[in-house]
Amino acid sequence: MNFLENFELFGNIDQAQNFIQTMSSGRFLFSLVISYTETCEIPGITFAGADKDSIKFTPPADAEYLHYGYCKSIDKIPMTPDGKPTPALLTKTALESASIPHLTINAGSKISPQLPFIETSMTSGKNISIQDAMTDSQVSHAVDYGRIVGRSMASLTDTLVIGESIPGGTTTALAVLRALGFDAKVSSSIPNNPIELKNQIVTSALERIDSDHPYSIIAKIGDPMIPFVAGMLSSASSISKVMLAGGTQMSAVLAFASKIGFNEENTLIGTTSYITHDQSANFKNIVEKIADIPIISVDPGLKNSKHSGLKAFSEGFAKEGVGAGGSIISSMLKTRNNSEKFLELAEIEYHRLFTSL
Amino acid sequence: MNFLENFELFGNIDQAQNFIQTMSSGRFLFSLVISYTETCEIPGITFAGADKDSIKFTPPADAEYLHYGYCKSIDKIPMTPDGKPTPALLTKTALESASIPHLTINAGSKISPQLPFIETSMTSGKNISIQDAMTDSQVSHAVDYGRIVGRSMASLTDTLVIGESIPGGTTTALAVLRALGFDAKVSSSIPNNPIELKNQIVTSALERIDSDHPYSIIAKIGDPMIPFVAGMLSSASSISKVMLAGGTQMSAVLAFASKIGFNEENTLIGTTSYITHDQSANFKNIVEKIADIPIISVDPGLKNSKHSGLKAFSEGFAKEGVGAGGSIISSMLKTRNNSEKFLELAEIEYHRLFTSL
Repeated sequence: MNFLENFELFGNIDQAQNFIQTMSSGRFLFSLVISYTETCEIPGITFAGADKDSIKFTPPADAEYLHYGYCKSIDKIPMTPDGKPTPALLTKTALESASIPHLTINAGSKISPQLPFIETSMTSGKNISIQDAMTDSQVSHAVDYGRIVGRSMASLTDTLVIGESIPGGTTTALAVLRALGFDAKVSSSIPNNPIELKNQIVTSALERIDSDHPYSIIAKIGDPMIPFVAGMLSSASSISKVMLAGGTQMSAVLAFASKIGFNEENTLIGTTSYITHDQSANFKNIVEKIADIPIISVDPGLKNSKHSGLKAFSEGFAKEGVGAGGSIISSMLKTRNNSEKFLELAEIEYHRLFTSL
Repeated sequence: MNFLENFELFGNIDQAQNFIQTMSSGRFLFSLVISYTETCEIPGITFAGADKDSIKFTPPADAEYLHYGYCKSIDKIPMTPDGKPTPALLTKTALESASIPHLTINAGSKISPQLPFIETSMTSGKNISIQDAMTDSQVSHAVDYGRIVGRSMASLTDTLVIGESIPGGTTTALAVLRALGFDAKVSSSIPNNPIELKNQIVTSALERIDSDHPYSIIAKIGDPMIPFVAGMLSSASSISKVMLAGGTQMSAVLAFASKIGFNEENTLIGTTSYITHDQSANFKNIVEKIADIPIISVDPGLKNSKHSGLKAFSEGFAKEGVGAGGSIISSMLKTRNNSEKFLELAEIEYHRLFTSL
């Protein structure tokens, strides 16, 4: 099966086909933006961590695992309470198979990763259910530094792929989308998406909004990753192609970026079919409302895995994250591997991890 | 005049000519490694700062100036007590004229720069005249992280250019060269090179050496920049070309790198004629004793400047530093500009700075 048959295209289809042509012959650089919002500490909001106390280690541990193949901040790779692995497993498999270089950016993680990383002097976001996430000046700082980092990275590659690791980020993303006027239904790392809980948090958070200035909105109900990645997109998209690798959270980035400006002609979203097929969310419609850009969605073929931990991704657990979808798309464009081959490689990595642990 | 007539080649001449051929058609990435050794606090050792208290701001300020065109940590660009500008002025002019991207790496600077930078979790070096610079494990950490950063950066370019900003670094470099068995006479940022003072410091420092293990030697009498850049060289030189941009300090890096291993076929030193013509030093002989690599030396033509602050570089003030020589060589290879054109651009930048200040 040709790998292109594992892709689905939405939004600006012509541009998607054009990107597929040009990207496959070019260089890729994957950047992982790690951050933190105390919103993730609300019980039941996220499964991105084995328990409440380990959630804050998930972003640095994702970065360490991508780099070293194991973690330093925690003893095992991040997993859900019942032992399902972080989507970084898919990202790692994809980047390795295609020898795509990657860099880690600390944009407000509570814990610094134990590897060299790009420092941005940003602090974590507060819990939006009880207080403002950031100050307006912290949002400006995030956008400014994002612009600087985006400019540097875009000048070193043909396609800059941006992924994120921020537990609880789908809730802040939902708040940002709603505040910016989009009737969003978001995906979650949890199969029985706690929609009620999220809606309660978002509704109470939205009450604090007293200005329609985008910076003020992000400060009140967003998280540090959103303005930083929006800043990266706004500068990088004038230099290279930029693939936002993610689902709901990247649609919130896109919504804010449309307020500060970016080059649509160089921008696309890369994600998994688990996001674009998620009935509980309306990801594609939101993106199409925000910008005339392509969405490339890939089916990683995990439903055929013999490992329950991998099969779970196809069943609604952690559908996306750590730039998994965009990394798989990038690796397939570079290697021409199809989902069958990708699954084979992911199972080897899964086996390596879970026999070595 | 053809820019090649502004170059002088030493060491492995064939390889130098080969590099000149291939580099000019490729991509460059400049990395500035900022660090600190308390050795610079010894009165009379360095002029890299307007006064004793401002020396520690020189490395971050050099990085900020390269990036923004002005400094954030201090109100003016770094200069000598009598107002001669940092060699970063030459680096800035060179990188801008050739649109060469650059990244800042914090490898033990006492002050963090106010821009996004690569963080390495390294601490400053101690004053080698009174105590060990680092612990052995800090040296291992520097080498390990240097290897990681070197590998990442080399995968993003064809030629990785490495410059440094570490006040007092020629003294620790002298100590490292002597300890590793090279009878080095080093250059200095001061025209009447305080050779006596440096020799006293180095002699007393060498007395603390009780092992011939290279890591132990660096820990006792080196500085954090040397093992970090040596680590960068060791990994990067197996992936891309690496130009060590500097004089005395880069010869010390080379001496230590020869103990941990690097690929000579991808390595060269780029510096200014003010270093290679320095009668008080024996830079060329030292490099030739360490490795069979090329040295490319460029005459920036500053002796013809109408500004005393630029002319001073040709008179022995801050002959090199912040990767000035290597940046000028890289920019000339990319733009085919000769020294005359470079001087013109440097004078425009000098004028911009000293009328805007």
